[in-house]
Amino acid sequence: MTFHIAILAAAMCAAAAEDVIKLPAPDADSGVTVTQAFKARRSQRAFAEAELSQAELSGLLWAANGFNRPDKRTNATGMNKQTIVLYVCMKSGAYRYDAKANALVKVCGDDLRGAVAGHQPFAAKAPVSIVIAADVSDPVYKAPWDTLTHYDAGIVSGNIYLYCAANGLATVCRGSMDRDALKKALRLPDTVRLHLNHPVGRPVAE
Amino acid sequence: MTFHIAILAAAMCAAAAEDVIKLPAPDADSGVTVTQAFKARRSQRAFAEAELSQAELSGLLWAANGFNRPDKRTNATGMNKQTIVLYVCMKSGAYRYDAKANALVKVCGDDLRGAVAGHQPFAAKAPVSIVIAADVSDPVYKAPWDTLTHYDAGIVSGNIYLYCAANGLATVCRGSMDRDALKKALRLPDTVRLHLNHPVGRPVAE
Repeated sequence: MTFHIAILAAAMCAAAAEDVIKLPAPDADSGVTVTQAFKARRSQRAFAEAELSQAELSGLLWAANGFNRPDKRTNATGMNKQTIVLYVCMKSGAYRYDAKANALVKVCGDDLRGAVAGHQPFAAKAPVSIVIAADVSDPVYKAPWDTLTHYDAGIVSGNIYLYCAANGLATVCRGSMDRDALKKALRLPDTVRLHLNHPVGRPVAE
Repeated sequence: MTFHIAILAAAMCAAAAEDVIKLPAPDADSGVTVTQAFKARRSQRAFAEAELSQAELSGLLWAANGFNRPDKRTNATGMNKQTIVLYVCMKSGAYRYDAKANALVKVCGDDLRGAVAGHQPFAAKAPVSIVIAADVSDPVYKAPWDTLTHYDAGIVSGNIYLYCAANGLATVCRGSMDRDALKKALRLPDTVRLHLNHPVGRPVAE
């Protein structure tokens, strides 16, 4: 039985070999000011199918959870634990964002955007869905700090909103997703929490 | 006994009359781009005593939790509940940020920065300490959404970081504070969670 499940998992995620997309340096600057971005910040739920460019993906992920110093990030984390990990779900598969290498490491060859969308199919139409995850196995995450990574996830969500507002991209923060399917496909242990997700794409009229 | 406690509370917070500071319009734009702000985003724990100007306070609070549309905000909130409330603790007292009126409404005449700082006195040196709170009495905040306002609070924290990074201000997100003392002084019911706090001031070398 275990063997059959293993075969199934392998079939579901055929591209488990370490396919790596090296992203361009995240130095594109839209020129939009922080104030302008706060004015434009909003949730949008209608997305064009057009893919994001690698430069956009790079800038977006760097803003969300990248390094802006040798050992520190664009996003604050409780006790500087830097526990947040981003999974990037696209038509070509699902990737872990390796912030240090500025690369996407394929962890599943399937299109998991439907699993991220769950009961809200509109979310699967965006070319990219970012899942904000955290492994809370570190003993520091015991009460009263058992919800510490929730705050960390919120900060990352805010950064994604600001980047999108500054770069003409549409996004919305979502709390629902098919967590069981995603954890299975991404081969994540029970200690990983899938906090939030963000479909991202070009806007179309809603 | 109850009577004595009431007298004590009144003495502690003598300025419960509705002193209101009307803030200037939050239209100052530092000119710093979103990318520059993400590059500069960091936690700083040493603060000059100098007060923030009312223009800075206005811009900071608007970026954190202000209205950028008639009925929506600079910060996303779960299910668009807009439950987050900010308390602004300064030498002159503690104020609730009334985002709609762009004003600070005094709720306590005491300097509560020490209570916000708790066991970390460095935090009391900043001229302003923002407490990020949420009343979770709405039935929507039952499991599995009992931690929804944690994400909301994280988003506000990220916005504060970005505003500070863009405007040469120092801040750090803190999870610890003397919650009992603060809730008593601010007269908050048990249904209010004090999530996070942010001392904000001009930076000095650490």
